[in-house]
Amino acid sequence: MLHAVILAGGGGTRLWPLSRAHYPKQFLKLLGAHTLLQETLLRPGPLIPPDRVWIVTSKEQEFLVRSQLAALPQFPDTAAHILVEPLGRNTAAAIGLAAIHLLQRDPDAVMAVMPADHWIARPDVFVTLLAHAAHLAHTGVLVTLGIVPDRPETGYGYIRRGEPLALPLTLDGGQITAYRVERFVEKPTAQQAQEYLDSGAYYWNGGIFLWQASTILAEIATYMPALAQGLHEIAQSLADNTSTRTLEAVYQRLEPISIDYGVLEHSSRIVVLPADIGWSDLGEWTTIHRLLPRDERGNSLSENVIDIDSENSLVYGSGRTIATIGLKDTVVIDTDDALLICRRDRTQEVKTIVQHLRGAEVTQLHRTVHRPWGTYTVLEQGTHFKVKRLVVYPGAALSLQLHHHRSEHWVVVSGTAHVTKGEQEFILHANQSTYVPQGTKHRLANPGAEPLEIIEVQTGSYLGEDDIVRFADLYRRV
Amino acid sequence: MLHAVILAGGGGTRLWPLSRAHYPKQFLKLLGAHTLLQETLLRPGPLIPPDRVWIVTSKEQEFLVRSQLAALPQFPDTAAHILVEPLGRNTAAAIGLAAIHLLQRDPDAVMAVMPADHWIARPDVFVTLLAHAAHLAHTGVLVTLGIVPDRPETGYGYIRRGEPLALPLTLDGGQITAYRVERFVEKPTAQQAQEYLDSGAYYWNGGIFLWQASTILAEIATYMPALAQGLHEIAQSLADNTSTRTLEAVYQRLEPISIDYGVLEHSSRIVVLPADIGWSDLGEWTTIHRLLPRDERGNSLSENVIDIDSENSLVYGSGRTIATIGLKDTVVIDTDDALLICRRDRTQEVKTIVQHLRGAEVTQLHRTVHRPWGTYTVLEQGTHFKVKRLVVYPGAALSLQLHHHRSEHWVVVSGTAHVTKGEQEFILHANQSTYVPQGTKHRLANPGAEPLEIIEVQTGSYLGEDDIVRFADLYRRV
Repeated sequence: MLHAVILAGGGGTRLWPLSRAHYPKQFLKLLGAHTLLQETLLRPGPLIPPDRVWIVTSKEQEFLVRSQLAALPQFPDTAAHILVEPLGRNTAAAIGLAAIHLLQRDPDAVMAVMPADHWIARPDVFVTLLAHAAHLAHTGVLVTLGIVPDRPETGYGYIRRGEPLALPLTLDGGQITAYRVERFVEKPTAQQAQEYLDSGAYYWNGGIFLWQASTILAEIATYMPALAQGLHEIAQSLADNTSTRTLEAVYQRLEPISIDYGVLEHSSRIVVLPADIGWSDLGEWTTIHRLLPRDERGNSLSENVIDIDSENSLVYGSGRTIATIGLKDTVVIDTDDALLICRRDRTQEVKTIVQHLRGAEVTQLHRTVHRPWGTYTVLEQGTHFKVKRLVVYPGAALSLQLHHHRSEHWVVVSGTAHVTKGEQEFILHANQSTYVPQGTKHRLANPGAEPLEIIEVQTGSYLGEDDIVRFADLYRRV
Repeated sequence: MLHAVILAGGGGTRLWPLSRAHYPKQFLKLLGAHTLLQETLLRPGPLIPPDRVWIVTSKEQEFLVRSQLAALPQFPDTAAHILVEPLGRNTAAAIGLAAIHLLQRDPDAVMAVMPADHWIARPDVFVTLLAHAAHLAHTGVLVTLGIVPDRPETGYGYIRRGEPLALPLTLDGGQITAYRVERFVEKPTAQQAQEYLDSGAYYWNGGIFLWQASTILAEIATYMPALAQGLHEIAQSLADNTSTRTLEAVYQRLEPISIDYGVLEHSSRIVVLPADIGWSDLGEWTTIHRLLPRDERGNSLSENVIDIDSENSLVYGSGRTIATIGLKDTVVIDTDDALLICRRDRTQEVKTIVQHLRGAEVTQLHRTVHRPWGTYTVLEQGTHFKVKRLVVYPGAALSLQLHHHRSEHWVVVSGTAHVTKGEQEFILHANQSTYVPQGTKHRLANPGAEPLEIIEVQTGSYLGEDDIVRFADLYRRV
């Protein structure tokens, strides 16, 4: 059976300020109707039903993955599998972890490994290729999709093809050929990239792989014995109650190594299937601009933009009025709390900006912060007060908590709140309010079927998020 | 005696989004430590003490003028005179109105007319010139300061000088000469402007004039009989209690005509005093950029800007993180609710943008709105709620009011509130709150010596500012 293994634990800074350390690219709606993670989940369609979808993510991003899954009617509750890594240890560990889980369910499992944050413009072609690649994988080879290059790109690794495989495959009536991989090639110079493009024998490595779970585990055993040992321990622990502890212990000692470096560059069982699927890694703003609809002057402008005579520019706004006059080859990304204005040919330097910002809040979180129970948005902050808008999802609850240094005033503006305050418990409806003095144990929950929206005014001498003592929590944060 | 008559009723759109229809340029701190109005008030120094300063403004801007005056320790309460025009009727009416007030106080009054929204880089030279010009004015002439041009500017009107006056004046040990005015010249073409500059016989008309109140009224009587008649009625009414009504009635029928067009272009008594004072009308962002301190690459960047390799650019921010990469000759003006990004050579088109916006809120008001009693800032707006931060000045009070369609929750975050709610009156301190149900008469006042800061959460089906019934108001808004 074919399973999807979606790697959704990544970070990345090149799409700042829209992406943030705690809300990276895969959770953003950049192109199309869904976020990149959701697009990735939906893309295989009937070929891979939800109960054969496995998402590998981090502890920190788990709730984001869950909430984006929950928003998809195609993925009923608990259908897809979420594997949570305690630490990021690069793709070899993530893929190995998925493989051992798959193997326990399905000894013949073929896994289609795909990153959660890429774009594929021709999903139909992609799905057909997946099916063919799955057949190939059943023969015990490691299949990589080799992205057919359309430009001499210097930002990607390449795959040099070797001999064609004996049996060509049929695709849409035509025939396609898979090849042995001659070698993997590091990011080339501009001249090399042009030569690769002209030769027709090179493909981009897009990180999309198909193989049997048993095959990749065998290869890991051969080329990455330390990882194989760790995976063995984890597999053993799945039967008993020690799995969380074992996982944590094993990951602690693993080195972060990519599957490319750890296995693919050494394996002799690897084949490449050319894939002309309109793939992009959406690695920088220029790429996004290239893929967005553009007007006759080459501009992609958000709705709230009033422009005079700009050319070849991307102006993305989040609601404010933006006026542009005479811009040329410029990227503007406007968010609530940070603004980027960049020449189109220098968008790769966004990561330098993020480095300069040295972990400032504006690189970590959006103004609206996602939590397992909902979201909060800081509306205003003074020296001794802070105003937040909280949205609590239906059925969700914040932890039972207290603050040593602040009091909180809550005004319900929509939905229904179940409030615990000291020994009291009561319900508040829209236009009702309550006051939680500092040092009082309290909890806010949404017993209703609609989101609960609350304006919270905090007052006190210290208003940091870390002034919180948790006594009970639905999300194991105590 | 020399009086200053400061014309502070103007609007203007070319510095949008920093200037707004209800908060125009003169109230902004653009260069230097004070707003342009404050700079204009302070500029004459001891030559014109506060009780000889007259500010002509509009009903709508009166409280802004008062609050900016109140912020200057040099201008003790009620020292300066504020003349409020019921309608804007251009400079001839404003100057005539000031002249009749001055004449009632001081039959020999000389008035130095100056716009509130210009910049003068060499105030010392300016003040010395004012003193000389005042002497000249005593001889019954109309003196204009002729700004010595430093570039072939096509955006200003010019003054062609004629014969030198018989007696040169002494300035800083050297001699200066005043000239008869040969003629006023409309905005020239680029070629004409260059010829004017080369000839040395042309000056910019900066709108700074000195004359006796009696002289200008005599000239108005000659060239603008309708205005003269209106001013006569207003002057008569000042003695009795009908002045507000008369002012309103007269202004209703006046035509808006500038003093230049109405008098100066016809008068034979007009002289020009060359003024090399570093004058600028700050008419567009490029001008401001020229006057701001710039780094070695020609950039003026706000503190919150992180830049890589930009050149010759102005980036003004109001607090958000702004990252710029490789900008060239670009102006960026970032405010809470609107963003302008404009090529440096096209900043005059900002007014086209404002026209396109057709009176949208973002052209009218800032996110923080000034009121006679303080300010309010809309922090968030949903379909059925609105969150505001109110700042009430010490001693100030909002009107006694009620709302038909909304309730209000108030949380005091600093200062002391005196609350009237139905029949109750009580005091709230920081971290206390109250609730005003819809339909309840209420009033918020600040009895303390510090500003009162309140977070107001409104809930209701209609949240427009016009849902207000006022019963009593300190600022005559009932």
